[in-house]
Amino acid sequence: MARSRRWILALDVGGTNMSGALFKEDGGNPLAVKSRRTPAAEGPEGVVAAGLRLLDDIRDEAVDQGVDPKRIVGAGVGVPGTVEPGRGIVSLAPNLGWRDVPIRDLFQDQLGLPVVVDNDANCAALGEWWVGAGRGSRLMIAATLGTGIGGGIVQEGRVLRGVAGAAGEIGHMTIEMDGRSCQCGNQGCLEAYASGTGIGARAREALRDGAESAIRHMVDSEDQVTAAVVAQAAQEGDMLGRLILRETARYLAAGLASLINVLNPDRIVLAGGVVKTGGLLLDPVREEVRRRAFPASAETCVIAAARDPELAGVRGAALTFQREVLEGHR
Amino acid sequence: MARSRRWILALDVGGTNMSGALFKEDGGNPLAVKSRRTPAAEGPEGVVAAGLRLLDDIRDEAVDQGVDPKRIVGAGVGVPGTVEPGRGIVSLAPNLGWRDVPIRDLFQDQLGLPVVVDNDANCAALGEWWVGAGRGSRLMIAATLGTGIGGGIVQEGRVLRGVAGAAGEIGHMTIEMDGRSCQCGNQGCLEAYASGTGIGARAREALRDGAESAIRHMVDSEDQVTAAVVAQAAQEGDMLGRLILRETARYLAAGLASLINVLNPDRIVLAGGVVKTGGLLLDPVREEVRRRAFPASAETCVIAAARDPELAGVRGAALTFQREVLEGHR
Repeated sequence: MARSRRWILALDVGGTNMSGALFKEDGGNPLAVKSRRTPAAEGPEGVVAAGLRLLDDIRDEAVDQGVDPKRIVGAGVGVPGTVEPGRGIVSLAPNLGWRDVPIRDLFQDQLGLPVVVDNDANCAALGEWWVGAGRGSRLMIAATLGTGIGGGIVQEGRVLRGVAGAAGEIGHMTIEMDGRSCQCGNQGCLEAYASGTGIGARAREALRDGAESAIRHMVDSEDQVTAAVVAQAAQEGDMLGRLILRETARYLAAGLASLINVLNPDRIVLAGGVVKTGGLLLDPVREEVRRRAFPASAETCVIAAARDPELAGVRGAALTFQREVLEGHR
Repeated sequence: MARSRRWILALDVGGTNMSGALFKEDGGNPLAVKSRRTPAAEGPEGVVAAGLRLLDDIRDEAVDQGVDPKRIVGAGVGVPGTVEPGRGIVSLAPNLGWRDVPIRDLFQDQLGLPVVVDNDANCAALGEWWVGAGRGSRLMIAATLGTGIGGGIVQEGRVLRGVAGAAGEIGHMTIEMDGRSCQCGNQGCLEAYASGTGIGARAREALRDGAESAIRHMVDSEDQVTAAVVAQAAQEGDMLGRLILRETARYLAAGLASLINVLNPDRIVLAGGVVKTGGLLLDPVREEVRRRAFPASAETCVIAAARDPELAGVRGAALTFQREVLEGHR
């Protein structure tokens, strides 16, 4: 192990689970990848305590594997909420029920090492830029199709955070003026159509309307009709599943084409369960984007599936720390 | 006049008219503001020749007013098209019918001074950021509601150009998946609803559908129903005119809310004839944006009318020159 090598702890706190690992400064394969449940009901203190225990376990395992503990220089933490740039305060995290939580200081005081905090979607975008499908891009947009749609914009290797740390909410672009109601209070957001929640809702509505589909035999009750079930049905050739995915591709492409026209990026990286259906989603997305976006801008933008979505968030948290603490700038 | 003061020629080439002026390095009141018709039919050479004549006139008048010609150090030029960053080549300018025109070199060879070229909407945005309603903003979006909808994004005083110089096309965000056809070939673009063209078209459709309105008595034929007529009717209390402007505000707000959620800017600057109706457009835009955008992001974003829209384009062209040539970076 090179004497000069420093290690960075990283933690990605989700609404349900948190995961962490130890990274070298080059962002390569991490040591001691671990995860545990997020005790969201226990409030910020409970979540921080659980996160610190996970980081302790990671540190212990890494030391067992020969890492010099003095070379572990700090931690990057991703959280599902809006983080005030430079201050490490979570102004709002709806899934955790947090508002104005000084999460960086809570971690830092107890870890005894410098800590940097950023939004989880920003971290995931940065992770894919660092060692993933966004590598080498100059202006990249990452989108994660999960329960909602998270997004992050990476410009010349830096996250575009906006003036209050709230940028990147690409799931909340209006694609239908008076369309489906969205969790955010608006109508017609991309997320209301193309997120896991939106996909499940559209499938359930089609089934209620009497559509024939193998999905009926794959579940015991309507509430089991999730995006994962729709994706599985589509992969097995079910017509309704394929129709729902094609529609999803259309909605997604309308949002991505808007982003391409506004930002002229060279890379869009997509993650999430339905993206794993490969050509069933990505091919029609690419085709519809070409139909909708300005040709010159569509041509210069590669749309790719994330390479390492499970680790992108923790990896990006490590890079955020490296940038802000080791290199001394945001 | 301070001995050290340098002067910058600036030219804003529009599809119909071009205007120019001479600016000091501080962007203040220009000398020798002049304009003339753009001889678009004469091709790039004819347009460049006309532009050079205008710049010569400006230089002559400025010298008459006491400017030392040796202190005029170069020219910034704005053109209505996509400009390749750093090379000054117009890759596409639909209104001029240009494709891959090396416009910077055409100007530079004959002017005998360094020339910098950028997109006109980017220049206008930069001009309002420099000395206008965008002053002091960290992340600003400018939109001009004209025949189409032009846009520019200014981040920490620099234009966000994207990887091929095509960023800022905010008029071409989809706000209705299967909505009105747009000039760009897509459907449901913001421009198809809220541009001057879109406003006129929606008013004509309402009149054709039998709507009562004073607009009928303001024009001799249907093709005279322009956005300017609609705005005038609205200001005079006409119900249809007011309805069309309210709808315009709703469409515009859907687009601006998307931009606010994606970029989290601190300033949006609007220009164009209908913006001059003041509260009739801007008030409902602000209200609907608050309803649609994330509260934290909406709160941090001021929506304002452009202060000097007629000169913003030329002023921004001068600043672009200053940045790229005098300061040596983009």
